[in-house]
Amino acid sequence: MNYNLFKNLIIPAQTKIVMLIMDGLGGLPREPGGKTELETAHTPNLDALATQSSLGLTIPIAPGITPGSGPGHLAIFGYDPLQNEIGRGAMEALGIDFELGPDDLAARGNYCTLDSDGMITDRRAGRIGTNVNQELTRLLLTIKVDGAEVFIEPIKDHRFAFILRAPGLHDSLSETDPQKIGVPPRLVCALESQSDKAAKLVNCFISSAQKVLANKHPANMILLRGFAKLPILPTYQEKYGLKAAAIALNGMYRGVARLVGMQVLDVNGQTLNDELTTLEKYWQDYDFFFLHVKKTDTLGELGDFDGKVKAIEEVDALLPRISALKPDVIIVGGDHSSPAVLKSHSWHPVPVLIYSPFVCPDEIAEFGERACRRGSLGTIPATNIMPIALANASRIIKYGA
Amino acid sequence: MNYNLFKNLIIPAQTKIVMLIMDGLGGLPREPGGKTELETAHTPNLDALATQSSLGLTIPIAPGITPGSGPGHLAIFGYDPLQNEIGRGAMEALGIDFELGPDDLAARGNYCTLDSDGMITDRRAGRIGTNVNQELTRLLLTIKVDGAEVFIEPIKDHRFAFILRAPGLHDSLSETDPQKIGVPPRLVCALESQSDKAAKLVNCFISSAQKVLANKHPANMILLRGFAKLPILPTYQEKYGLKAAAIALNGMYRGVARLVGMQVLDVNGQTLNDELTTLEKYWQDYDFFFLHVKKTDTLGELGDFDGKVKAIEEVDALLPRISALKPDVIIVGGDHSSPAVLKSHSWHPVPVLIYSPFVCPDEIAEFGERACRRGSLGTIPATNIMPIALANASRIIKYGA
Repeated sequence: MNYNLFKNLIIPAQTKIVMLIMDGLGGLPREPGGKTELETAHTPNLDALATQSSLGLTIPIAPGITPGSGPGHLAIFGYDPLQNEIGRGAMEALGIDFELGPDDLAARGNYCTLDSDGMITDRRAGRIGTNVNQELTRLLLTIKVDGAEVFIEPIKDHRFAFILRAPGLHDSLSETDPQKIGVPPRLVCALESQSDKAAKLVNCFISSAQKVLANKHPANMILLRGFAKLPILPTYQEKYGLKAAAIALNGMYRGVARLVGMQVLDVNGQTLNDELTTLEKYWQDYDFFFLHVKKTDTLGELGDFDGKVKAIEEVDALLPRISALKPDVIIVGGDHSSPAVLKSHSWHPVPVLIYSPFVCPDEIAEFGERACRRGSLGTIPATNIMPIALANASRIIKYGA
Repeated sequence: MNYNLFKNLIIPAQTKIVMLIMDGLGGLPREPGGKTELETAHTPNLDALATQSSLGLTIPIAPGITPGSGPGHLAIFGYDPLQNEIGRGAMEALGIDFELGPDDLAARGNYCTLDSDGMITDRRAGRIGTNVNQELTRLLLTIKVDGAEVFIEPIKDHRFAFILRAPGLHDSLSETDPQKIGVPPRLVCALESQSDKAAKLVNCFISSAQKVLANKHPANMILLRGFAKLPILPTYQEKYGLKAAAIALNGMYRGVARLVGMQVLDVNGQTLNDELTTLEKYWQDYDFFFLHVKKTDTLGELGDFDGKVKAIEEVDALLPRISALKPDVIIVGGDHSSPAVLKSHSWHPVPVLIYSPFVCPDEIAEFGERACRRGSLGTIPATNIMPIALANASRIIKYGA
């Protein structure tokens, strides 16, 4: 629905919505005739909630398309992920909890090895350890670029996040990594004239970096790729009239939440239990809470079927702490599927449940892939979930007379 | 589907379609675990028809969006309600059965009170009675506006419908009601230059109205808002090749039907029984009949669960009179939901049934919200219903070779 039209129907209300996202929730049976991870899990609390809810399946991007974490979350947040791309460099920066701003141009960086003729001999600099990476990063940070700030954050081994901060930067830039050895690193080229300034500043930095690193073989040069700025999105406040908060342990999800204007709350600890304590602590202060569970995806990607089952059961066991807060609307879903048998994200539609006193319950006493496909929501774009949740939270007025 | 593409597939046929719309049909359970109004109603005839039909749920506007009556009907008639907005002034005029034409600009009017300095002291003129309203309206109708005809129809209390008829009027106009007291009424401003003519004529009328009403305290001035022309839509004949008739007791629905080119038939009486007599009388003369039942919505909005159940049972009892005419296709549905527990229109998908000898029956012997969500139509945009009905009426040819 047209954004401005929709925005005009939004009204304030004293209602609260909780969106519980189990990352990579959807799964597949381990063997023919078997059950999926979610179907296998013993989830009495989710099943009880399901009987009072509308069930369905969400398609994050498009049929057959496997989402990355960024687009998967944008979709369930209600933003078209095809219209609002988050480039790789920006995802890398979000992933380490770097607070990217509107003047920031981000890239994925790595150290590499050049021979005496300036030809690349190793694109990963022998995978130098993180300690060496940190030491070299301190060197790179001594470089001054006129009219811009530079931020470099070491990641693992030879990888780092590169952020250039200056007004008027655009991200239509070619990459410096030629993706092969025996050739020199490339210069950055502006692919559109509006990116001229960014190209000039990045090339200036790279040239200084080569000098600073000259004696640091095998990490005597850097490669940059995936230049990206964050898309500029209407905030949850602007789009939905919601004062929204995010509770997530991993940088990437905190970053995507920040991108849509959610306040990212501090969690004291590293467990789901700690996340729920944060939810309880800030319950009075926000209208909307995004609560992110990472473990389900991690275990799915590891191919650990039983581990993923157990992770889902842990979420189920803690669900009463959410219900005890008496949210007006509870959404339980995922950003994409991560079947253990595939050991990766997948394209499969994701189970979703919307609870509120105003849904016409499906009377299906189970939360699982096959149960959800019998649900009244149908198999729908993930972007439909927020409008339905807002309606159930009495936050949308009638269209037309 | 692209309108012109679709139109080229339409062929004539000797088949008849009846669309029976129970206004506000969809509902919600009165208590947890309970049944909706439609599920509660004893509907042996609808249930028998359901076994031979395709069932589903319709989304009138978009997920989570609660439709007004105008957009709800446009959708089930097959017109995108977001592309074809019916403004408030036009709805007001339709509601009193005023036959708005393409040269008509309509507005909602009300009498108000000005003090001796010309400031508004009461935006509703003390809610003068309808009798006074009628008397003042006769005065206003003495006003001449050069190059235009003026129509004023008293509604209830202080409210009236205002219609200005002249070629070349556009409805991008500001309102004269400042929505507060202690300030003078505003003049109408053209929000786009194409509306200059309309603004000039309306202001001319308002200025005369102030003179005519000068001594009629407390109703010594008028306020106009919601200026709107009707959208221009292809007719049922143009769009579907159907000679269509509407049977409805209330002006608003008669008006929307007229807007899509249906012939609005006279009903001799005020009951559903009288509507069916009209259907039988004109059965030979049209290909398509829209039959509107208002009571279901009225009782839903009143919060009268049992009353709505009874209204549905009344429709069910009369269904054999429709079946006896042997329509080729019968559609039973609603323009939106109006759950008694919400006492208002709502966003919930609406039960629908399509009967024809050519549907693959769902073999679900019940017409209700939960039954329909198991149906083969799925949960679909209301605009999909007419193409499916036309196909079942042998009125659409193959697309492509």
